[in-house]
Amino acid sequence: MNAHVYDLTLADGRRLSPYCWAAKLALAHKGVAFETTAARFVDIPNIRGGGFKTVPVVELGDEVVGDSFELALKLERDFPDRLTLFAGDGGVALSRFVGAHAAYLLGKMSRAMVLAIHDGLDAETQAYFRTSREKMFRRPLEEVAANPEHSIASAREAMTPIKILLRQQPFLGGDEPLFADMLIAGLFQWARVVGAVDYLDGEDKLAAWFSRLEDRYGETLAKTRG
Amino acid sequence: MNAHVYDLTLADGRRLSPYCWAAKLALAHKGVAFETTAARFVDIPNIRGGGFKTVPVVELGDEVVGDSFELALKLERDFPDRLTLFAGDGGVALSRFVGAHAAYLLGKMSRAMVLAIHDGLDAETQAYFRTSREKMFRRPLEEVAANPEHSIASAREAMTPIKILLRQQPFLGGDEPLFADMLIAGLFQWARVVGAVDYLDGEDKLAAWFSRLEDRYGETLAKTRG
Repeated sequence: MNAHVYDLTLADGRRLSPYCWAAKLALAHKGVAFETTAARFVDIPNIRGGGFKTVPVVELGDEVVGDSFELALKLERDFPDRLTLFAGDGGVALSRFVGAHAAYLLGKMSRAMVLAIHDGLDAETQAYFRTSREKMFRRPLEEVAANPEHSIASAREAMTPIKILLRQQPFLGGDEPLFADMLIAGLFQWARVVGAVDYLDGEDKLAAWFSRLEDRYGETLAKTRG
Repeated sequence: MNAHVYDLTLADGRRLSPYCWAAKLALAHKGVAFETTAARFVDIPNIRGGGFKTVPVVELGDEVVGDSFELALKLERDFPDRLTLFAGDGGVALSRFVGAHAAYLLGKMSRAMVLAIHDGLDAETQAYFRTSREKMFRRPLEEVAANPEHSIASAREAMTPIKILLRQQPFLGGDEPLFADMLIAGLFQWARVVGAVDYLDGEDKLAAWFSRLEDRYGETLAKTRG
């Protein structure tokens, strides 16, 4: 069974969304082959005839999942004998904490990236992106992006718990990566694809961890254009 | 089998350490009765003839554990049929992430509390506390404690991932509390015992969560003087 991922894209085909990256890493972890279809922000409402507000949207056989965490749960149910994504119920519950931390980091990391993302979109999508993000941040994008040094320092500081953990164990999941690793890795891959800020620069523990993930999922992470 | 906890104390007997609180909650969760012996910071090197640098030190039958996380792991091994503290290996690995987040929050929450803690110690312990904490923070306690509004706001902001999570589920552990909850609850109990800052004030989700923990471990949490 192959999967099919509707995958958020910039105008030049670079695949953007941290949650799409987490989903693709989860598929790779479970050994489920997949193809992708590029979807712009403005295409999301029309995916599969409508009904989805966010990406990833993932088709798995006859079923469709519209959320990366739900996808990971489904993969764990459907392929219980393959490498685990959660390692038990406690792993599921606490992966949601990692997901909450990822959402928090996403907000912080995005400030210094938001104009680069905007500039990478086509004109129609730019208009959508500016309106929706200015509503979210409650200020013009140019104000969100002002003082990038401060924003970057704040994002790096908010990564402290991850950096503390990676002094103790090679992956968030322990000796082996779990979906928790993919939730965080999606953020760094997103930043790398956009290219405006190198959040791994000078961060030895984080860079070594991301490199360990590349050893395992290098083929998936290399397909930055789908 | 009863357990025995060497439990960090202020001069008036109030039990201080977030990690001792996490340990006592883990014992309560596993239904292991315990007694405590008050230990000042300066008593730690002499506990059981020496060899321990931190509290809690917990005696369980003939065995001794010098770390709250190690205690929780031991309780899970020794009492596998009682309520779980981790719900599987993934829960263990990601509880270490919660522990890293707790260590990060401890540093942030302590700034506005550090003088109140100092003032609650006897003179001998005050001297130790000032020297060790000024080395840790690399500045005088009075400077650490300066601008408490800023410190408190920074600590509250760093709690954001927990607040996001508690919109989704009643405990960090999901539908039931796990050791991850106790690692964070220890911090709020520590703050409550010291009394200088009410970190639950105005935090509806956190306060409701702490209240749910009190419903389960109220007897343990009420023994603020051992």
